[in-house]
Amino acid sequence: MFGKWKAWIGASPPRSLAIGFALIIAVGTVLLKLPVAVRSGIDLSWLNAAFTAASATCVTGLVVVDTGTAFTPFGQGVILALVQVGGLGFMTVGTVFAFFLRRKVSLRERLILQESLNQGNLEGIVRLVRKVILYALTIEAAGSLLFALRFMEDMNPGKALLYGLFHGVSVFNNAGFDLFGEFRSLSAYVTDPFVNLLSIVLIILGSLGFVVLADLVDYPIRRRLSLHSKVALSMTLLLTVGGAILILLFEYTNEKTLGPLGPGSQALAALLHSVSPRSAGVSTLDLSSFRQATQFLLIWLMFIGASPGSTGGGIKTTTFAVLTLAVLAVVRGRSDIVIFRSRLERDRVYKAITVTLFSLALVIVVTMVLSITENHTFMEVLFEVTSAFTTSGLSLGLTQDLSGPGRILIMAMMFFGRVGPLTLFYAIGPKPGRPLYRYAEGKIIIG
Amino acid sequence: MFGKWKAWIGASPPRSLAIGFALIIAVGTVLLKLPVAVRSGIDLSWLNAAFTAASATCVTGLVVVDTGTAFTPFGQGVILALVQVGGLGFMTVGTVFAFFLRRKVSLRERLILQESLNQGNLEGIVRLVRKVILYALTIEAAGSLLFALRFMEDMNPGKALLYGLFHGVSVFNNAGFDLFGEFRSLSAYVTDPFVNLLSIVLIILGSLGFVVLADLVDYPIRRRLSLHSKVALSMTLLLTVGGAILILLFEYTNEKTLGPLGPGSQALAALLHSVSPRSAGVSTLDLSSFRQATQFLLIWLMFIGASPGSTGGGIKTTTFAVLTLAVLAVVRGRSDIVIFRSRLERDRVYKAITVTLFSLALVIVVTMVLSITENHTFMEVLFEVTSAFTTSGLSLGLTQDLSGPGRILIMAMMFFGRVGPLTLFYAIGPKPGRPLYRYAEGKIIIG
Ligand SMILES: [K+]
Ligand SMILES: [K+]
Repeated sequence: MFGKWKAWIGASPPRSLAIGFALIIAVGTVLLKLPVAVRSGIDLSWLNAAFTAASATCVTGLVVVDTGTAFTPFGQGVILALVQVGGLGFMTVGTVFAFFLRRKVSLRERLILQESLNQGNLEGIVRLVRKVILYALTIEAAGSLLFALRFMEDMNPGKALLYGLFHGVSVFNNAGFDLFGEFRSLSAYVTDPFVNLLSIVLIILGSLGFVVLADLVDYPIRRRLSLHSKVALSMTLLLTVGGAILILLFEYTNEKTLGPLGPGSQALAALLHSVSPRSAGVSTLDLSSFRQATQFLLIWLMFIGASPGSTGGGIKTTTFAVLTLAVLAVVRGRSDIVIFRSRLERDRVYKAITVTLFSLALVIVVTMVLSITENHTFMEVLFEVTSAFTTSGLSLGLTQDLSGPGRILIMAMMFFGRVGPLTLFYAIGPKPGRPLYRYAEGKIIIG
Repeated sequence: MFGKWKAWIGASPPRSLAIGFALIIAVGTVLLKLPVAVRSGIDLSWLNAAFTAASATCVTGLVVVDTGTAFTPFGQGVILALVQVGGLGFMTVGTVFAFFLRRKVSLRERLILQESLNQGNLEGIVRLVRKVILYALTIEAAGSLLFALRFMEDMNPGKALLYGLFHGVSVFNNAGFDLFGEFRSLSAYVTDPFVNLLSIVLIILGSLGFVVLADLVDYPIRRRLSLHSKVALSMTLLLTVGGAILILLFEYTNEKTLGPLGPGSQALAALLHSVSPRSAGVSTLDLSSFRQATQFLLIWLMFIGASPGSTGGGIKTTTFAVLTLAVLAVVRGRSDIVIFRSRLERDRVYKAITVTLFSLALVIVVTMVLSITENHTFMEVLFEVTSAFTTSGLSLGLTQDLSGPGRILIMAMMFFGRVGPLTLFYAIGPKPGRPLYRYAEGKIIIG
């Protein structure tokens, strides 16, 4: 009986991945529910414990209870551990253990790793995982140290080190959790260039994906980037700069956001809020005070999200690039989709459409349902659902007011978003089979 | 000098189509600006005259001034003529004149017709146009007569005939204009089965597209439908029934909409408001009283819209079908997209993506801009922009409050929506050329 289940789970790497995530969330829920995890006087319900565990494991950062004031250092440690495991991918962590135990990594485990890191080929996957851990820990250590140095100006060294560690790991993993209390995120540092620039660099490094990071590290020697890295880097640059310009344009006259700041701080805040939706979830301003146009812009930045194989969510920068190029190709009457002098395979285009449309459909349906269960404006609901599904973690304030069914739906969206819609499809669906015959081509009128 | 322009316009059928539409709107504007077109005491600005002419020619039905109370019978006649010309397509009308004058239809004119009706081949296009006119006028005559018979119960026979004619033509052309005053649309007939069912039938007939109508008329003899007709008919059925069920589910407890009605009237109203967004624009209830979930649903029904080659807008039912099937094919691991036992060409899929993404991008950008220029809720702005672009004509009440720039943007959206994004692309863009060489295939990670 149990063996049958084990076989069913093991038969499909995507299935193992999805179930692994679910198990980690379950363990996290139990740990957060321990009396030692919450401060005295705080009564954490099972639902809120599960919500917090899911949000941390899916590196989303939507919070129903304030991380800084409701949890003890133990509880905060659990959250940080879930972020680290969820961010790096539980299989990556699992492999490290296997390495340390000098056990051979099996083919099945390699297949799961491949799914987890979204890598096209099996070759070198273990080498990549070792690099992932090395780079991630190096960047996190450097980030934590730099944060700690800055925080020492405001608090005692011990607390500054702990805060540095928490925010270094949380920001690099695009997790969106913070310890500053009262759901304020990094508001206290809105005019601080050091904290802003450090956060922006950590967020971008975390959201590029490990393949791109490895490519960048090798660049001084190899003097070339892979096609994938070129696309991810150029889209990141384009979206970051384009988003910042639009935010600046929409908000510089808004007295509740950028208005009162100096030009330098305005540019800094615009840049942070352009980077953060894809999909870090930190903020230095009150998002509910942004203009509707800016909020709508953030929704689309969240929807596009980070690059594949990273800690971030969304449909991914490369998907967005393929779709844009497909549109341009049709408009220019070309039948090939060309990117950096390479032709794209047809099945990549179909995959890009599938990811995008499925994501869009899911956001639409869940927004519709939450519009009924929650008594909030449409913008707040759409923003929250998109944020959950893209594991972005930004909120216009709906999270804490969510009804019971609302919390469960938002949890489900974080889970779907982190596991990835395609992975989930393959996890649930039947094995792809070859059709026995092909149908004749038919004509249909479009548009 | 002038000859050069004429050559530039004539060189591209899509360009001729777009410019033809613009000219008709210009003529309509001048006619509506005549003192004889508006009632005494009404001061119609040039902008509002242009808005009304654009709304009528693009069969949208968004109105800044009330058709029933602001315009004289002459002005209403101009609006109806614009609806008829815009609905049937000005080239269709032009061809009829050519027929009556026994002049030969030139190849260039046939090419424009082909673009206008979105037909794949030139053969039989003139025959199709004759059918278009015949079917349209027959259905309009029958619809007008039935409306008139019903209206005779409420008004004198002369007025009833005029009202019957106006609403028969307006409803079949999915134009959304009405004469009942105070922007009430068909509210007075919310519980009237005759008016509701007649409207639903006329809207559906108008939104199926003439190719499907011709196919249906021939069905008793040929006993088979084309692939295109099968797809358009099944999607229409699916969207109509599915939409009605969701509206019923979302609204039956809403005291401001379906709540106070009996079960029969509830079903009738749900059906009408499921059909109307795609893209007729009539209503029997106050749309701003609908729940947010229902309003969001209507936005997506508007976005999907009618079938190709019809009087309606949106990305079209067939586009939606192709996208859905593409997603299902990828999920099931199939490389062919199969519909009614036919394989879809790859370029159809690319075209479907292009239409959808370009439409989505346009709606997003204009919604963002209008969120800044107009002081209304996000939902009202998104609803209005989608309605204009899909030539649906439903509104949550923003139209009359629109600022000057807002009116111009909404006019532009109605125009883009009616001409069609792809047609406009080809109208502006360079001629598609064959690339001299192909690039090698490259790999990129998606999702
Ligand atoms: K996040
Ligand atoms: K309409």
